[in-house]
Amino acid sequence: MARLVLKFGGTSVGDIDRIRNVAERVKREVDAGHEVAVVVSAMAGETDRLDSLVRRVAPLHDAREYDSVVASGEQVTAGLTALALQEIGVSARSWLGWQIPLRTNDAHSAARIQKIETELLGARLTQGQVAVCAGFQGIGPDNRITTLGRGGSDTSAVALAAAIGADRCDIYTDVDGVYTADPRIVTQARKLDKITYEEMLELASLGAKVLQTRSVEMAMKHRVRVQVRSSFSDLPGTLVVDEDEIVEQQVVSGVTYSRNEAKITLRRVEDQPGIAANVFGVLADNHVNVDMIVQNISEDGRATDLTFTVLRPDLDKAVRVLEAVKGEVGYDALVSDSNVVKVSIVGVGMRSYAGVAKTMFSALAEKNINIQVISTSEIKISVLIAGEYTELALRALHTAFDLDAG
Amino acid sequence: MARLVLKFGGTSVGDIDRIRNVAERVKREVDAGHEVAVVVSAMAGETDRLDSLVRRVAPLHDAREYDSVVASGEQVTAGLTALALQEIGVSARSWLGWQIPLRTNDAHSAARIQKIETELLGARLTQGQVAVCAGFQGIGPDNRITTLGRGGSDTSAVALAAAIGADRCDIYTDVDGVYTADPRIVTQARKLDKITYEEMLELASLGAKVLQTRSVEMAMKHRVRVQVRSSFSDLPGTLVVDEDEIVEQQVVSGVTYSRNEAKITLRRVEDQPGIAANVFGVLADNHVNVDMIVQNISEDGRATDLTFTVLRPDLDKAVRVLEAVKGEVGYDALVSDSNVVKVSIVGVGMRSYAGVAKTMFSALAEKNINIQVISTSEIKISVLIAGEYTELALRALHTAFDLDAG
Repeated sequence: MARLVLKFGGTSVGDIDRIRNVAERVKREVDAGHEVAVVVSAMAGETDRLDSLVRRVAPLHDAREYDSVVASGEQVTAGLTALALQEIGVSARSWLGWQIPLRTNDAHSAARIQKIETELLGARLTQGQVAVCAGFQGIGPDNRITTLGRGGSDTSAVALAAAIGADRCDIYTDVDGVYTADPRIVTQARKLDKITYEEMLELASLGAKVLQTRSVEMAMKHRVRVQVRSSFSDLPGTLVVDEDEIVEQQVVSGVTYSRNEAKITLRRVEDQPGIAANVFGVLADNHVNVDMIVQNISEDGRATDLTFTVLRPDLDKAVRVLEAVKGEVGYDALVSDSNVVKVSIVGVGMRSYAGVAKTMFSALAEKNINIQVISTSEIKISVLIAGEYTELALRALHTAFDLDAG
Repeated sequence: MARLVLKFGGTSVGDIDRIRNVAERVKREVDAGHEVAVVVSAMAGETDRLDSLVRRVAPLHDAREYDSVVASGEQVTAGLTALALQEIGVSARSWLGWQIPLRTNDAHSAARIQKIETELLGARLTQGQVAVCAGFQGIGPDNRITTLGRGGSDTSAVALAAAIGADRCDIYTDVDGVYTADPRIVTQARKLDKITYEEMLELASLGAKVLQTRSVEMAMKHRVRVQVRSSFSDLPGTLVVDEDEIVEQQVVSGVTYSRNEAKITLRRVEDQPGIAANVFGVLADNHVNVDMIVQNISEDGRATDLTFTVLRPDLDKAVRVLEAVKGEVGYDALVSDSNVVKVSIVGVGMRSYAGVAKTMFSALAEKNINIQVISTSEIKISVLIAGEYTELALRALHTAFDLDAG
């Protein structure tokens, strides 16, 4: 007997037949003797529909009202899923965020979970009743509905798993696991049986859309075993676990990319202390996050070129902000480029292997791919390259690090 | 300065433009210095959509889950209406049933309101904030969402008006008031300026669809002044008030009809004590309500014919139930007829005027309309006639009681 949390995303509960399919899957776990809590998202498209209603009424809206409106999507699927379970003879009830209660702070639309009170819900689980929880939502200190931000249902599921001491949290989605690369681009990509929290966190942050970053952070913090698997097949998925559990660690576990980057270069910035702080300070003040940074000495050695990346949706704002302080900062010209992609390799094995960067850069050089900016962490190396080389780079790196399916 | 409750039905909040229109109306009352609570239904069609989702998943469903799913419709409009108010500079927030809290018993899908705690909401009203309440929903003793049954938002509004001591409860709908008859049938029908609770209650029970019966009962019990008016025009509506407030009372205030009746006749029932109790007892056991009843002595004087009406949707069940006890009850034949209509005249003035029944029956006789069953109360007379005479009967009665416009 184990205690499990099963989370189903919007496509998995996208219509009545799929909700019935979810119920069948849950029933199998119940029949196997497990205690099961289910977390559901809104039906695919429903959050967008509700979001659009709100934006049409009030482009700049009160986040408290927004949360109350959009949280209704998960309320509907939670009820329908509980009913579908009852229909096939499984004892079940729905739980809304305020009923559990799942308490959050008051940062409406991007709330952080503070405490999940599991006394009521846990007692029902012990009695063998399936708890179908509305994902994405909680209750704030002001007794109003909060939401956790897009993709928040993953976080709901992992947090619930931690709170009820679940043996595993299965995230059912429309892919059957975590791959060494996007299989739509790299046909040789392989599904990973296991991946470490750290790697998953880097992959999620770097653009892989399998799990929400915050949910992985939470899983890592509370050591929740997470499995990513498909709601449309019975294949085992990918287990996200502690490093100790992975015996044979590859040097590199995956190759990923993000097109959501844009590059800004400030030409001939005066080379004096405090200038960089000035540039990045004004961007931070305007809520523009800067990711990769590189500084080159200019040809005459009297000034530097400062290059960095921002998220693509922030590019226009960043340019506007920097042009407004041109005189103050002191640079010759601002050049922006949104035709760039960030390609990354990720692997905890990097820590103990030398030469990973060399292998990466050589593989790219062999294909005549110019590296514009580099950034690294303990377990990843990211490079910024021109957008048209994306596929070529991913395939070259996948082969160079022996990830191709055999 | 007055305290007002304004209730808007599904067509009044049917799309974004209409919700904006509602906000403008509310703003006018706020600008006039009033404290305003608003009660909203779900957008037109939304409750049906949610109802159908539930029924597709589970034809015989757990009413607790049903309530949680369908209550989401009002949750959405409450949020959107609060946002629309904020957009035009009116301080507003939404209140869900559990947030107020509006406490009900545990009769899910047909819950009765037990107590509305107005401390929090009342404090906000006093501060000048509009309270936008989700209609139709409450919270049960088990901390789960309950709903009040179809049309329940009228009841929510009247109950809230009673609880906060509102000076008036305006029910905005798609008609501009209560008419002496259905204007689609009787072109001479006039809008009433005022009507008594008792009359409105009879009209609601007898098929007029302007207000939900329970909301009128509640208004009468708590003496809440209710106004029925149109959300699409600025004309004053009909005020539902105490009898004392109506100086010049008509003998008859309105003529109404219901096609939702069916007639059953049991021929040659043995004329002995207890038989009627037997017949109506078995129907009651099977949850079939009987409305009008008439008993005739048969020609030979040794048996009686028993005729009564049931709601049309219950006809098949009633026939099945009665055929099963044919031997026990002892009758010769069962004849059913669903081609009937109940036509009623309503007016508190009847109490003090003799001859009302005579006027009614003569008017019908003049048009050669045969009366099949009669039932009366202190302030109404209903007759059952063949369906094809509906329009003729309504027009004749409207004229006979001096209700025609002009």
